[in-house]
Amino acid sequence: VTQSRADEGSDLRQAIQQLVVANRILAHEGVLDVFGHVSMRHPERNDRYLLACSRSPELVTADDILEFDLESNALDDRGLTLYSERPIHGCIYQARADVKAVCHNHAHSLLPFGITGVPLKPVFHVAAAIGYEVPTWEIRDEFGDATTLLVTDNDRGHSLAKALGLGTTCLMRGHGSVAAAGDLRRVVYIAITLMQNAAILSESLRMGAVNYLSPGEVEQLRQRVLAPRSLDRAWDYWCERAGFPTRPAVENQRS
Amino acid sequence: VTQSRADEGSDLRQAIQQLVVANRILAHEGVLDVFGHVSMRHPERNDRYLLACSRSPELVTADDILEFDLESNALDDRGLTLYSERPIHGCIYQARADVKAVCHNHAHSLLPFGITGVPLKPVFHVAAAIGYEVPTWEIRDEFGDATTLLVTDNDRGHSLAKALGLGTTCLMRGHGSVAAAGDLRRVVYIAITLMQNAAILSESLRMGAVNYLSPGEVEQLRQRVLAPRSLDRAWDYWCERAGFPTRPAVENQRS
Amino acid sequence: VTQSRADEGSDLRQAIQQLVVANRILAHEGVLDVFGHVSMRHPERNDRYLLACSRSPELVTADDILEFDLESNALDDRGLTLYSERPIHGCIYQARADVKAVCHNHAHSLLPFGITGVPLKPVFHVAAAIGYEVPTWEIRDEFGDATTLLVTDNDRGHSLAKALGLGTTCLMRGHGSVAAAGDLRRVVYIAITLMQNAAILSESLRMGAVNYLSPGEVEQLRQRVLAPRSLDRAWDYWCERAGFPTRPAVENQRS
Amino acid sequence: VTQSRADEGSDLRQAIQQLVVANRILAHEGVLDVFGHVSMRHPERNDRYLLACSRSPELVTADDILEFDLESNALDDRGLTLYSERPIHGCIYQARADVKAVCHNHAHSLLPFGITGVPLKPVFHVAAAIGYEVPTWEIRDEFGDATTLLVTDNDRGHSLAKALGLGTTCLMRGHGSVAAAGDLRRVVYIAITLMQNAAILSESLRMGAVNYLSPGEVEQLRQRVLAPRSLDRAWDYWCERAGFPTRPAVENQRS
Repeated sequence: VTQSRADEGSDLRQAIQQLVVANRILAHEGVLDVFGHVSMRHPERNDRYLLACSRSPELVTADDILEFDLESNALDDRGLTLYSERPIHGCIYQARADVKAVCHNHAHSLLPFGITGVPLKPVFHVAAAIGYEVPTWEIRDEFGDATTLLVTDNDRGHSLAKALGLGTTCLMRGHGSVAAAGDLRRVVYIAITLMQNAAILSESLRMGAVNYLSPGEVEQLRQRVLAPRSLDRAWDYWCERAGFPTRPAVENQRS
Repeated sequence: VTQSRADEGSDLRQAIQQLVVANRILAHEGVLDVFGHVSMRHPERNDRYLLACSRSPELVTADDILEFDLESNALDDRGLTLYSERPIHGCIYQARADVKAVCHNHAHSLLPFGITGVPLKPVFHVAAAIGYEVPTWEIRDEFGDATTLLVTDNDRGHSLAKALGLGTTCLMRGHGSVAAAGDLRRVVYIAITLMQNAAILSESLRMGAVNYLSPGEVEQLRQRVLAPRSLDRAWDYWCERAGFPTRPAVENQRS
Repeated sequence: VTQSRADEGSDLRQAIQQLVVANRILAHEGVLDVFGHVSMRHPERNDRYLLACSRSPELVTADDILEFDLESNALDDRGLTLYSERPIHGCIYQARADVKAVCHNHAHSLLPFGITGVPLKPVFHVAAAIGYEVPTWEIRDEFGDATTLLVTDNDRGHSLAKALGLGTTCLMRGHGSVAAAGDLRRVVYIAITLMQNAAILSESLRMGAVNYLSPGEVEQLRQRVLAPRSLDRAWDYWCERAGFPTRPAVENQRS
Repeated sequence: VTQSRADEGSDLRQAIQQLVVANRILAHEGVLDVFGHVSMRHPERNDRYLLACSRSPELVTADDILEFDLESNALDDRGLTLYSERPIHGCIYQARADVKAVCHNHAHSLLPFGITGVPLKPVFHVAAAIGYEVPTWEIRDEFGDATTLLVTDNDRGHSLAKALGLGTTCLMRGHGSVAAAGDLRRVVYIAITLMQNAAILSESLRMGAVNYLSPGEVEQLRQRVLAPRSLDRAWDYWCERAGFPTRPAVENQRS
């Protein structure tokens, strides 16, 4: 955090730092690579969100985080290039007052589901967080078959937000996915789990008839896997792996 | 090992240190990630076991290890959050006097077997340690189809222990697996091998008719692969990889 | 850069340094391993190209970069061993005035397409850069079925360049691929994306009916994904991963 | 190299050091893990070979290398535990005067071929070194279906050597493989390539009808890919990756 932010409130500074860590975690775990991004709603103003300038998440630092209104205009772009797909974030924040964080990613294991139309549903307990079934947004339905696939304006953003509906995840055919949740740590959890569930389901589908989680199991699990005791454990682990240790180094006997 | 443990016997201190190493090995080899855990029976009291507080195995240190009775009550929880699925451990130790160590994990390669019901049997020699065939515990059989899948009480723990029977491994549908053995190093070996055999069998099933190990081969191999000469070699290797070198550094010519 | 190059223009020195970085990036991302190579056209002379001596790309340094004419003769080989397949580069530069950089690689995920003849087409947005469909060069068609498969002379090089045609990518059955583009960063992008698209398409083909990018989508995307805003982001990311950081270290809070 | 070896000839010392590096390379590339081993014929005595004591290859140092006669008796075991499967090496050296190095491994990608009986043949150019087709040794044919699968005596060793015949590679059902060649670097190359070809062929078989290398192509390529120019490049690369740099560090611009 540089001097230029010395006048900002500590809530905002903490939020920015947490968003940097979320960027690094999602990059380290393979959810984000060159492309994709993660945002959070402004901690003090519901009509704004925080998102990095156009930078690969692995490289994002606190100085890259900018503020946007819900039309996805930068309050002050400081001359930086912006992600062209920021309407994904703004339109979901507009549509969903309960959503405080959004991740757009192209994790490789989930792309085949959007490409083939095979339903993506949770098959192991921690993946209940993704919902009963992940819908797919087909940009061709509303915008024709000669688009860039990209969500570069608010019309496309509203269309995607509608496909997401009241859920937490949505696939985008030939492109990627979005995850949305009530706080940043939950979005990180959901995005990582969505990727893992896709890989496990792909393998299961090749092997035989798949026994998905039942509706009752998803119902029982979806709150539980996102409860603080689960998130705390996960967050500490992902922070450590991404180079942001949360525990005293002296306790670690490794050479 | 901190001063607070200065009054403990050296057997216990060594056991705790070995359990820390087992946590790190299983995390490093990909058996455990955010979730999953490994325990050992108390070296001096058969009615107790040692298990970390609620922490990802990659981060576990000696100060995290707590003692539990076989009903899975902590003797002194020191105010720490506990793994909710510790009844897995307590109930297996109750049912099996021969078992001195237990690992519960969700290694991704083995999940499709529980999800599809395809039999998981050893196909290469080192995997004879997993037994002739790995049974699957279906929580729905006894507890219905609207559970959390989790083994959060002793009723579920006893049910799982029954499915494990006299064997060393058991799958849990949509959730993971358990491994149980006569000492900690054997459990580490079995858990890693179970994961590897699942991946190799998955690939083989896609390729053609599978030639499993014969009953006679499993019989000949299961003791041999868990003999000290095999375990010693494996343990040194896994320790080195997990950051706990067992050989003098001066012998290693690497830069 | 050593003294022996002190008399060279700064454009050439910069080009050589960028080519070294491209070698390292392609090695780090798994496109190149022991074998494969990447070249660029000389920045000041269209009748020459720059390519390393016979060295794995992971190990290439500025002192390894040599100049070749378009017949693939080294201007000064300094006694170094040369890549035997350098005619790939020379013949493509001869045939295509628009091409300023070429990569020949054997990335594992794309080999099955050449081996089986299954069409390789883009299925996710960033892969539009590979073209509508990737042709396959079958050396047997012109040179019989008892060759080394290698492009070790200009006859084979011209044949391959003809199969590439006006496109950006071409498979070589049982051997690998080539990528060609208007500058070095684009070739790096295309080679990495070709490899990724092959893996995602393989997985999709196993899952069900594949919904490829439409011709209109490829048309809209192919220039956009290779635009500077996309390339800048990608290049910074790949440089960082390959050990050539492009951003101030002080901004990175990682330990 | 310790003082205890000060009286040995420099050829032997160099051979031992090269064997240590081969152990580390094969471990780093994933050919060897806990188990598996690589040996070389004694550089000065055709009736002896060099092999480590019972140690995972990743951990092998010069002090671990022992001499064996071709009956696989240690000349001086220095009280160390020995690999139980050393007859693999002794029996192949007995049967094949041309063989100077042998690797026994259980690389995961090749196991499904032995397990299912699907033919393993080269599909990409660098894999011509494995031969036209890799035979499979089935221990049951001669020793019944209740063995350990292990080659723990010379009877089994001779049987395996017979299955290898005049070739360079042989699969062992449910167990692994052997590679044998005229020098240590060639064996390293063949073992790595066998593993890679297995993975690429597996993927190709799932995709469609496979176009294998033709007999003429294998014939043209098998010497070429093992020629010094190819081996030199590969060896430098693998050494670098395994932590034995062969080039001056000052040339490497990486941070």
